[in-house]
Amino acid sequence: MATIGVDLGGTKTMAVLVEDGTVVSKAKKPTPPTGGPADVIDTIVRAVTKVDPDGRATAIGIGVPGPVIPGTGVLPAAPNLPGWDHDVPVGDLLSERLGRRPVAVDNDVNVGTLAEHRFGAGVGVDNLLGVFVGTGVGAGLVLDGRLRQGPHGLAGEIGHTFVAFEDLGSGGLGRGELEDYAGRRSLERRARRLADEGKPTILFDLADGGRLKSRIWAEATEAGDQLTIGLIDQAASALAAAIASAIVLIDLELVVLGGGMAERLGEAFRSRVEEELMERSFAGVITPVRTARMGDTGGAVGAALLVAEHH
Amino acid sequence: MATIGVDLGGTKTMAVLVEDGTVVSKAKKPTPPTGGPADVIDTIVRAVTKVDPDGRATAIGIGVPGPVIPGTGVLPAAPNLPGWDHDVPVGDLLSERLGRRPVAVDNDVNVGTLAEHRFGAGVGVDNLLGVFVGTGVGAGLVLDGRLRQGPHGLAGEIGHTFVAFEDLGSGGLGRGELEDYAGRRSLERRARRLADEGKPTILFDLADGGRLKSRIWAEATEAGDQLTIGLIDQAASALAAAIASAIVLIDLELVVLGGGMAERLGEAFRSRVEEELMERSFAGVITPVRTARMGDTGGAVGAALLVAEHH
Repeated sequence: MATIGVDLGGTKTMAVLVEDGTVVSKAKKPTPPTGGPADVIDTIVRAVTKVDPDGRATAIGIGVPGPVIPGTGVLPAAPNLPGWDHDVPVGDLLSERLGRRPVAVDNDVNVGTLAEHRFGAGVGVDNLLGVFVGTGVGAGLVLDGRLRQGPHGLAGEIGHTFVAFEDLGSGGLGRGELEDYAGRRSLERRARRLADEGKPTILFDLADGGRLKSRIWAEATEAGDQLTIGLIDQAASALAAAIASAIVLIDLELVVLGGGMAERLGEAFRSRVEEELMERSFAGVITPVRTARMGDTGGAVGAALLVAEHH
Repeated sequence: MATIGVDLGGTKTMAVLVEDGTVVSKAKKPTPPTGGPADVIDTIVRAVTKVDPDGRATAIGIGVPGPVIPGTGVLPAAPNLPGWDHDVPVGDLLSERLGRRPVAVDNDVNVGTLAEHRFGAGVGVDNLLGVFVGTGVGAGLVLDGRLRQGPHGLAGEIGHTFVAFEDLGSGGLGRGELEDYAGRRSLERRARRLADEGKPTILFDLADGGRLKSRIWAEATEAGDQLTIGLIDQAASALAAAIASAIVLIDLELVVLGGGMAERLGEAFRSRVEEELMERSFAGVITPVRTARMGDTGGAVGAALLVAEHH
């Protein structure tokens, strides 16, 4: 059986054709930076048609940048997509354009976690958390071998868990949520403020007037920039606390760590998180942290798996 | 069909005979304060025999004060039970003494949550968290209508989730876990230290040399004792942060709040937690907090429900 998986991101849209667990074809298109949902849907249809021009796939799965209303295929307001300021029935719109084949929709970190569980770092482990550190921090949950969506489609929003309930550490830069410490967006704000206060750092020189991309953070860390090292250490601590909480609350066997920021910071970052997780372990249960393995196509492959997961 | 449920606590052991969802008989025995597991098993057998002298029940469920190794009926070291310093196969030992009938074993907060879900404050809600505030803080999770045990039997250990990752607020009284702020044991240590530092409080006069039981905390709060009010406020904030984190991470519809401390502090405490939860809500999802309804027999009734849950 052949199925199509689509990863709809803020900058690119990727489609894969998966047959018997193997990617047999893939296509990448830029997501339109302006316009509205209709333009985004057009782009998806073009990517799908490119990987499967003859319409062999029996169903389509798609990962989207935001929580999806369960059972509906509706993606509400998505800040990273152009003109996406209202509920859009992605599933129905795509199904109409793709010969009325069934379309399953879920959010991008959920499908990324699903891909890691079935083909990546989480194979054989039925209770795991996939944590993706990029601009923000998101996660997906596999419990007893199944992806958890939750009644509101919000399961896995670890970036919004609280790691500082009295808000003592966030210094006005948030309300004590994990994302206030560990996402690239917040890290840049923190770095900017510290630099404005006169703390020395090479971060902004490296960025040369642009945003502090993951690559910049990795370079500054390698160069021994103390401000960067301090912020990344704090990010790892906040991540470890949030993940440790998830583990004792849900009882999990494995953490898969991915996302642009985690990938760039590499093994040093992974082992730092794992070590702190060990210090925070409960009842002697040690939970390993593995690096995500699916890379660039993880989202699309996971989306192709959604078809079986949702039906 | 008749089943027996047993709630094994540190001070008392309660058994109920449940027939068609109704408690038709109950018995309470003091849990032996000294001796060892054999004495505790004897007490349980006596309580069971008292509620069901003719052996009509087809199966027995039991809630125990500690996490149980899933699928085994084994309760490892339990600090609240006499001489319980090693793995004890509670399920097998009881089954041998009770005509080899099947025995299902789970921890006390899990069975308490199950009872609230089937007969109490959580009826009709399939994704809920039962939080019990007493000496410590424990919780049970019902996901998609089923009690979650988790691969290590640890699901629901909310007391050990981290609410202060940099440990800024705990002042050396713990490592930033919810239980360091919200359990009666930690609250007493905090009150003691503040009193030793010269802060005025009526707490220790009310206790008259004894422990600070839930009743004492409620009385001091009602009397307007500022130190008490401050500590209980902090406990409510820590609880709300931990619960809010659980909600965004797992996606839940309802919180059921119970346990000796929450019951004594009453509606003021419940509404304080609910209000802070609202302030910490994500994506516009409001999660109500309801007071646990099953009272004294909740644990035993929940244990009787285990039989169906585990098989």
